[in-house]
Amino acid sequence: MTFTAKDPDYAAKVREIFAAQGFMALIGAEIVHLAPGECAIRVPWRQDLTQQHGFFHAGVLGTIADNAAGIASFSLMPPGSGVLTVEYKLNLMAPGQGEAAIARAVVERAGRTITVAVADVFALQDGAEKKIAKATATVMCLQSKG
Amino acid sequence: MTFTAKDPDYAAKVREIFAAQGFMALIGAEIVHLAPGECAIRVPWRQDLTQQHGFFHAGVLGTIADNAAGIASFSLMPPGSGVLTVEYKLNLMAPGQGEAAIARAVVERAGRTITVAVADVFALQDGAEKKIAKATATVMCLQSKG
Amino acid sequence: MTFTAKDPDYAAKVREIFAAQGFMALIGAEIVHLAPGECAIRVPWRQDLTQQHGFFHAGVLGTIADNAAGIASFSLMPPGSGVLTVEYKLNLMAPGQGEAAIARAVVERAGRTITVAVADVFALQDGAEKKIAKATATVMCLQSKG
Amino acid sequence: MTFTAKDPDYAAKVREIFAAQGFMALIGAEIVHLAPGECAIRVPWRQDLTQQHGFFHAGVLGTIADNAAGIASFSLMPPGSGVLTVEYKLNLMAPGQGEAAIARAVVERAGRTITVAVADVFALQDGAEKKIAKATATVMCLQSKG
Repeated sequence: MTFTAKDPDYAAKVREIFAAQGFMALIGAEIVHLAPGECAIRVPWRQDLTQQHGFFHAGVLGTIADNAAGIASFSLMPPGSGVLTVEYKLNLMAPGQGEAAIARAVVERAGRTITVAVADVFALQDGAEKKIAKATATVMCLQSKG
Repeated sequence: MTFTAKDPDYAAKVREIFAAQGFMALIGAEIVHLAPGECAIRVPWRQDLTQQHGFFHAGVLGTIADNAAGIASFSLMPPGSGVLTVEYKLNLMAPGQGEAAIARAVVERAGRTITVAVADVFALQDGAEKKIAKATATVMCLQSKG
Repeated sequence: MTFTAKDPDYAAKVREIFAAQGFMALIGAEIVHLAPGECAIRVPWRQDLTQQHGFFHAGVLGTIADNAAGIASFSLMPPGSGVLTVEYKLNLMAPGQGEAAIARAVVERAGRTITVAVADVFALQDGAEKKIAKATATVMCLQSKG
Repeated sequence: MTFTAKDPDYAAKVREIFAAQGFMALIGAEIVHLAPGECAIRVPWRQDLTQQHGFFHAGVLGTIADNAAGIASFSLMPPGSGVLTVEYKLNLMAPGQGEAAIARAVVERAGRTITVAVADVFALQDGAEKKIAKATATVMCLQSKG
């Protein structure tokens, strides 16, 4: 599906929101793709992002999946909107083993109030991507009162 | 419901797993309650755990909810078991605003292979707890081959 | 938690909506409890509600869980509201074996737009109730334009 | 992704399981596509499958989504396996309005114990398909003791 952004400045606003999220800096996440209805977030492996076997912690994968889904959804909202994750669900399908994890989110359905986005999470291993998790997120548009 | 631990050493093993999760140290999480089928994890607020409005990032709340649910589930597994989150779902119900966030998980159903646990997440505001999120997690027991 | 209904006629409206759902009559479901923020729906076992082992089909359990959660949510909405399930998630915890299945839903958080409700599903076996499934539903209030 | 069936008789076993589910006959569901890792289930509109506005009840959509996901998962399991839905989550994205509803499921990840499948649900309106719901299901393989 191809989407059109309602807000011509969406990309600048996304960058601003992302930069204001202290947690993204803490885990070393960066946006590596952004288009109307699409967002990918990448986080390189570090020892302090792991679970007990040295793989990416599920919490890290859930964080970038939720955030990519929220930004993909926000990218389609009208100017002045706020964005809120209502819920997300993450299925873990394989160990998060590799040099980096990448969450690629696309909007499935953009409504006036509710947007549904899906994020697939991949581990980068020796240059190849392997799907390790899948999330569905329900995102709400908070309309500006301005 | 009251549960009995099958592994008399479960508490020591939980502490060992938790200490081996680099991500728990990074976010400053600690276990504040542990009993058979129950676990609570607390994380004090810091600027580098926030989303764009200065509240706890949903990813932090999902992380402690998933981890508390996983540990509550693990506490009931037989000696030699490994533990794996199959999936979790988080509903965000109010802004994560306060001095700390606490995820309190309890097992709903402990099966031989699959355990279901629920985690409520609270924000500590001026000494009072407010429920801000709710998670359900499906956790798998990996049996020892020993 | 105790809730107060904003619409004094909520019970009559719930009965009207329920009676208008052809699918509830087909599966033989009835409301057996209704209070502000609470709803229970019961369906007696029949051969044509089963999966391949003669137990209640997961689809039947999901149906009454979703419907009980939707009605519990609707019971707290202002007069003139419409109700819509945004999403629901169902964990199946034990076989749906018994004379009847009962979904008991309670609202966890009632917001202006989004309500979160939890429904536990029980099987009635020889007079005792056994929890067989657990659902979380996200429900939206559609405000009247009147 | 292309999958290969481990059980050469999987299609006959699927038909047998489906025929043994009383609930599928009640709602008038039929399998309209079956391949390794894939299943589509179709149900024509009837007044007794509706919610209060005359559209397909969410419970019907959840039922065919879950069942299609379960069958897609089962189609990849070894001979002698049993199949069990652990959990499913359904996002409703548009009203279930049309002559028929079709759930198309594909396996995302087939593990020895746990399979994850996604089902998109479409409404057939005047010959065109519109996506109205999306489900993710976690399915367990019960190994034969034979």
